[in-house]
Amino acid sequence: MSMKIVDAKVIVTSPGRNFVTVKITTEDGVTGVGDATLNGREMAVVGYLTEHVCPLLIGREASRIEDTWQYLYKGAYWRRGPVTMTAIAGVDTALWDIKGKVAGLPVYQLLGGRSRDGVMVYGHAQGSTIEETVDEVGRYLERGYRAVRAQTAIPGLSGTYGIGSDGERYEPASSGLPEETPWSTPAYLNHVPELFDRVRREHGYGFHLLHDAHHRMSPNEAAGLAKALEPFRLFWLEDPTPAEDQTAFRRIREHSTTPLATGEIFNSIHDCDRLITERLIDYIRTSVTHAGGITHLRRILSLAELHGVRSGSHGATDLSPVCMAAALHVDTAIPNFGVQEYMPHEERTNEVFPHGYHFADGHLYPSEDPGLGVDIDENAAESHPYEPAYLPVARLHDGSMHDW
Amino acid sequence: MSMKIVDAKVIVTSPGRNFVTVKITTEDGVTGVGDATLNGREMAVVGYLTEHVCPLLIGREASRIEDTWQYLYKGAYWRRGPVTMTAIAGVDTALWDIKGKVAGLPVYQLLGGRSRDGVMVYGHAQGSTIEETVDEVGRYLERGYRAVRAQTAIPGLSGTYGIGSDGERYEPASSGLPEETPWSTPAYLNHVPELFDRVRREHGYGFHLLHDAHHRMSPNEAAGLAKALEPFRLFWLEDPTPAEDQTAFRRIREHSTTPLATGEIFNSIHDCDRLITERLIDYIRTSVTHAGGITHLRRILSLAELHGVRSGSHGATDLSPVCMAAALHVDTAIPNFGVQEYMPHEERTNEVFPHGYHFADGHLYPSEDPGLGVDIDENAAESHPYEPAYLPVARLHDGSMHDW
Amino acid sequence: MSMKIVDAKVIVTSPGRNFVTVKITTEDGVTGVGDATLNGREMAVVGYLTEHVCPLLIGREASRIEDTWQYLYKGAYWRRGPVTMTAIAGVDTALWDIKGKVAGLPVYQLLGGRSRDGVMVYGHAQGSTIEETVDEVGRYLERGYRAVRAQTAIPGLSGTYGIGSDGERYEPASSGLPEETPWSTPAYLNHVPELFDRVRREHGYGFHLLHDAHHRMSPNEAAGLAKALEPFRLFWLEDPTPAEDQTAFRRIREHSTTPLATGEIFNSIHDCDRLITERLIDYIRTSVTHAGGITHLRRILSLAELHGVRSGSHGATDLSPVCMAAALHVDTAIPNFGVQEYMPHEERTNEVFPHGYHFADGHLYPSEDPGLGVDIDENAAESHPYEPAYLPVARLHDGSMHDW
Amino acid sequence: MSMKIVDAKVIVTSPGRNFVTVKITTEDGVTGVGDATLNGREMAVVGYLTEHVCPLLIGREASRIEDTWQYLYKGAYWRRGPVTMTAIAGVDTALWDIKGKVAGLPVYQLLGGRSRDGVMVYGHAQGSTIEETVDEVGRYLERGYRAVRAQTAIPGLSGTYGIGSDGERYEPASSGLPEETPWSTPAYLNHVPELFDRVRREHGYGFHLLHDAHHRMSPNEAAGLAKALEPFRLFWLEDPTPAEDQTAFRRIREHSTTPLATGEIFNSIHDCDRLITERLIDYIRTSVTHAGGITHLRRILSLAELHGVRSGSHGATDLSPVCMAAALHVDTAIPNFGVQEYMPHEERTNEVFPHGYHFADGHLYPSEDPGLGVDIDENAAESHPYEPAYLPVARLHDGSMHDW
Repeated sequence: MSMKIVDAKVIVTSPGRNFVTVKITTEDGVTGVGDATLNGREMAVVGYLTEHVCPLLIGREASRIEDTWQYLYKGAYWRRGPVTMTAIAGVDTALWDIKGKVAGLPVYQLLGGRSRDGVMVYGHAQGSTIEETVDEVGRYLERGYRAVRAQTAIPGLSGTYGIGSDGERYEPASSGLPEETPWSTPAYLNHVPELFDRVRREHGYGFHLLHDAHHRMSPNEAAGLAKALEPFRLFWLEDPTPAEDQTAFRRIREHSTTPLATGEIFNSIHDCDRLITERLIDYIRTSVTHAGGITHLRRILSLAELHGVRSGSHGATDLSPVCMAAALHVDTAIPNFGVQEYMPHEERTNEVFPHGYHFADGHLYPSEDPGLGVDIDENAAESHPYEPAYLPVARLHDGSMHDW
Repeated sequence: MSMKIVDAKVIVTSPGRNFVTVKITTEDGVTGVGDATLNGREMAVVGYLTEHVCPLLIGREASRIEDTWQYLYKGAYWRRGPVTMTAIAGVDTALWDIKGKVAGLPVYQLLGGRSRDGVMVYGHAQGSTIEETVDEVGRYLERGYRAVRAQTAIPGLSGTYGIGSDGERYEPASSGLPEETPWSTPAYLNHVPELFDRVRREHGYGFHLLHDAHHRMSPNEAAGLAKALEPFRLFWLEDPTPAEDQTAFRRIREHSTTPLATGEIFNSIHDCDRLITERLIDYIRTSVTHAGGITHLRRILSLAELHGVRSGSHGATDLSPVCMAAALHVDTAIPNFGVQEYMPHEERTNEVFPHGYHFADGHLYPSEDPGLGVDIDENAAESHPYEPAYLPVARLHDGSMHDW
Repeated sequence: MSMKIVDAKVIVTSPGRNFVTVKITTEDGVTGVGDATLNGREMAVVGYLTEHVCPLLIGREASRIEDTWQYLYKGAYWRRGPVTMTAIAGVDTALWDIKGKVAGLPVYQLLGGRSRDGVMVYGHAQGSTIEETVDEVGRYLERGYRAVRAQTAIPGLSGTYGIGSDGERYEPASSGLPEETPWSTPAYLNHVPELFDRVRREHGYGFHLLHDAHHRMSPNEAAGLAKALEPFRLFWLEDPTPAEDQTAFRRIREHSTTPLATGEIFNSIHDCDRLITERLIDYIRTSVTHAGGITHLRRILSLAELHGVRSGSHGATDLSPVCMAAALHVDTAIPNFGVQEYMPHEERTNEVFPHGYHFADGHLYPSEDPGLGVDIDENAAESHPYEPAYLPVARLHDGSMHDW
Repeated sequence: MSMKIVDAKVIVTSPGRNFVTVKITTEDGVTGVGDATLNGREMAVVGYLTEHVCPLLIGREASRIEDTWQYLYKGAYWRRGPVTMTAIAGVDTALWDIKGKVAGLPVYQLLGGRSRDGVMVYGHAQGSTIEETVDEVGRYLERGYRAVRAQTAIPGLSGTYGIGSDGERYEPASSGLPEETPWSTPAYLNHVPELFDRVRREHGYGFHLLHDAHHRMSPNEAAGLAKALEPFRLFWLEDPTPAEDQTAFRRIREHSTTPLATGEIFNSIHDCDRLITERLIDYIRTSVTHAGGITHLRRILSLAELHGVRSGSHGATDLSPVCMAAALHVDTAIPNFGVQEYMPHEERTNEVFPHGYHFADGHLYPSEDPGLGVDIDENAAESHPYEPAYLPVARLHDGSMHDW
């Protein structure tokens, strides 16, 4: 099989929010797509790809996925980081899409074949009061979800992470300048345990309950919360402390058995090697798009398997259906799958990215079409031009910056 | 003091090679410049800055350097990596330039004042044969250098790292597609020790001798070379093994006392925390431009000081005179300075970036002007438009990718 | 900039309690002040400065702060310790004051600019009964404090630490010989938890509650208390065990998530390196005056930042307004500020040390004047001659010495 | 036995160099002396003692040595450091002298009695050339020494540590301002190994050979030298790296079996706990005078014994014959004695401090008189008034401060 790449382009579209997609075409006319969206820093990846990567792809052998990955990673000299690895991921994912199409097989078959029937997902329940969140958890359970993440607004703090401003879905990125949100960890710690007490009393223990702390606690604060939440048997407590500081998790771990998850911001196996090999977490949340594509994500998940850590890939709507399609192939194939985050895209997003995966009974199922089973409708994409948007920032009461 | 930023722009110029410069202007008309060049991936940083960072700067208080650093680092959510940290560095450096001008002091005065008379630098001696390199070392010594890096071509390998193709200065980046260079570690290990034997026999031990292995050995190969070179008492052996794998240095360290240096590719203190705290290296080569600016570089160097690690900042011509000016202020002020790499820029580069630092007797001296003492001549810059260029890649004899 | 030091003198004054101030004058007539007070051992620092340090300063370049720090630290040969480091701090602080004046900027601008609007402080609530302390906490809250330290007398023990003898402010140092106070850890452990239960029931959880155990428990006793106080969610438990034994904190830490603070007695980064890097504490209480000045304190706080430890500088009235002024500049600039201790000085002290910082809404704000924004009125100082005074000592019921 | 202290005074005398002596008198007229000399910072200790400690001693029970030690250590609140611990040592030593006199026994009898016949000492051989040092070693051996420390001048560096300027005895402290000496570790490393090769070839292996590197190498440089010196089987390599950084010794230790000694600058067991418990050194050089007196030094040596570390107390002439007398009692009594440094005092010093210890056959022998067997002749002392003097500092070729 020899099949040279003849075109590599980058498509920016904003059907509700911004997405960056790599589309590669071979001399035989086979196309592949990859998600390269870095929420709030999209155009840096576009610059990386358009100016520095796409010219390198023309004439290369599309089948040499590993070689291309190494070429882009080692050849850049300046390695790692969100921009670089997201750009590489876009290319890598598109090449796997092509590989599947050439083989006439869904990508999960190339990754070792089916290891499970469906991919368990968790949904996002939120509320401006504890009462509202408890009710919302109930609605997820009614819809068949077996795992639900619960977040609640904190009294006195406007714009709490995970809570939509108007009872609508929560989309943190906003156009214009970054929203500045207030934060108080003591207010959060004083309020949030009651949420889980109430959820468990109302809905029982027959489903998986998750929570995202979004990097805002110190290790010691996180240890206290993790200990306090033990009676409610969380599936996981996510991002308890800023994740770039791996050894910080040791302190949390020694105080509590509440399962921990982190990694949506990781780009490389070197960002989580100690978390995994010291077994400081239970779930690794690296995604196809931010962790260097299917090729590198498999390396991370393979190390995780060796140390009893399961997957729990980031799956918010800041990643396009192309990433979700790819994630589901990985989730279906690996032995150490844990759970998949799932936040359905808006209808207009789905129109731009037609795809064959579907939800049923609390699970997602990958497309059985050759390749990833997702595409980009370039015409539809064109009608949604890029709109600058930023994630919020957080400040403490004294005006100093905190982790958002 | 209140001084809002009214303009922030990004200037790309290519006087011989590409440079990206951030220029910030305050309401009082004070300007500051910062280098944001990422060799071979310049436009990704330009995209990051132009689309995502510059809009955030307008109206911000120029004096709030630390707050701006935290705002850009934490506010991006997706942290670290060469593109992100180089963009932040450009802004941070420009703000320090402004701070110095407002104070009426050279920046090193704000960093604690002068700790030394001059900044010892090392030059690059290279040759297509050992004989040529030995002679070239002599020429550096005649010019007053007290520290010289020696590299030699490896027989049978064209395009060895560090060796100019025509006896000219070595500039690895080339326009067009990346050069593919062959590599053989056994050939290198068989040849290179003789270079140091010859240099020491010819020129003695009264100067500092350095060597750059450029990430190409395994830890065990590197340990062997480091041990073999002990009689020649190197000042340092640089980048013995790929640097993103910090624990790999343990193996080198347990076999040899040849001093080790690494870090020109690091962007964050988290990239080198174990190297420093476990004392696996003797010199940390992080630069102002790639390690998040003066603000973050000082954090790294402070950690290094505590563990007896000295600075040896990257200073090749892939960074502009703006970075060199900033580096010299840091070098002059810190207690744990080691050495500064120095590869003089071409004349046309110096014309675009007029600056007040100068070389004498093997040392560089920072400008005594307020701020950094460097500027960009925008008219001159305009006459050198951006030209795409890449760093080379390396392949082994079987065609597989290796670290360049 | 060249500006030689032409005078360096040491002023001892006792407006209510003893303070030692270094005053440095440059050839241009710029003056700087630094606090060098070591409570109860003042004259040792005076001897250190007058006989051994001041003669070295004459003719030195005032701008070379880092070099002078290294000169005094390394040049002494006998390093570290409270007397040495307080003497160096006095000089270092005065040089930063001069640097700010020369730059025409408040010192926090030289340290990276403003990172927050105000510096949150905590006040000292005390009572001879639990009831009294609870009431006193309420009075602090009424005055706008957001953080209050609560101490109560222990029945059967006269002269409990932190409790004024007559309902007045608590000033532990007394003239004449050291007061000998009785101590019983069991009595303390039996009594003190109720204080926090009562404070939280009366005043709720909407403010920060602190407690100082003043080095008197064994690690195991401290672990028990820290665990028992978890429901009251302290901001910190201070000095749970004698602080010179860093590894003792491991035992406390493995039993409880109550945040821990220590370090007011530390003089060097080597006194707290393990506490910080092993994350055994949450707040480091080193002060400008006892930890080698602004230059060295920043080193400590930078290491703390990397490990998620926040500042909580000692700020009792044993340090002069010169130290408080300097502390507020550091607090304003650093990213990892936590809280600042604040015990207002007497009016006569403020008259001797006129200063521009002020309290409002539970926060302190540094002066906006160039330099530190504090001075010493030498005439006023002269009217308060030195009076020998000692801190108390503590003995157990059998007459044996205990940690005070 | 009840015996109150009725007088405590501090005597400063300079018979060749400055010495500070504590003299305590009991109500029965028994007197004791203790050395409290801190070279170059004498008057700080004098201030500490005169103003803050002596008033506390009057009326105290002279027999309560341990209680007084705890009273001064814990009661100061601000613990550790050279000034504090030297002051406490002066008092502690004097109380042991009194205790011996009251018992009618030499102090070593109170410490457990004689463990050895004599105290092996080492002398200081030095030369401005290797040749001179080799000869000087020979002269020591002829005089019966069994252990000799060898130091040589480094070509190109004036004022090398350990080398007298005029072939005379080496006294580093000089009156006037501190001497600024140049230093180059590479020059040292290029030169010094030959000294030991020559000494061993000339004088053989039948005696103990020592060397003092005086804190000037990095751990890695020290590891290289320690490895290089292995063929010459040193008794010890002293102060290979700055001693406040205990973990730095791990790197030296893993490369070489050359025995290591350090600790003359330590004041507390907390300064060397890791060095001892991790067995990073072979000899601990803490002295009676700088490590808190006989009471605290015994604690350190007891920990050392437990970990196979032997004593090698500092014994240069910066400490008075009072310290040497005390050291010999400790050396005679402890099980884990190693060696004692011995640099004879000048005749005029001996006149001020008449003593009963003596040298024979390479050993020192403590006095058999009750107490320490040393005294101060106050009349003689008075004729040698205090003369300010400083230890030198060291600078690198670029003018930056280095460890002296």
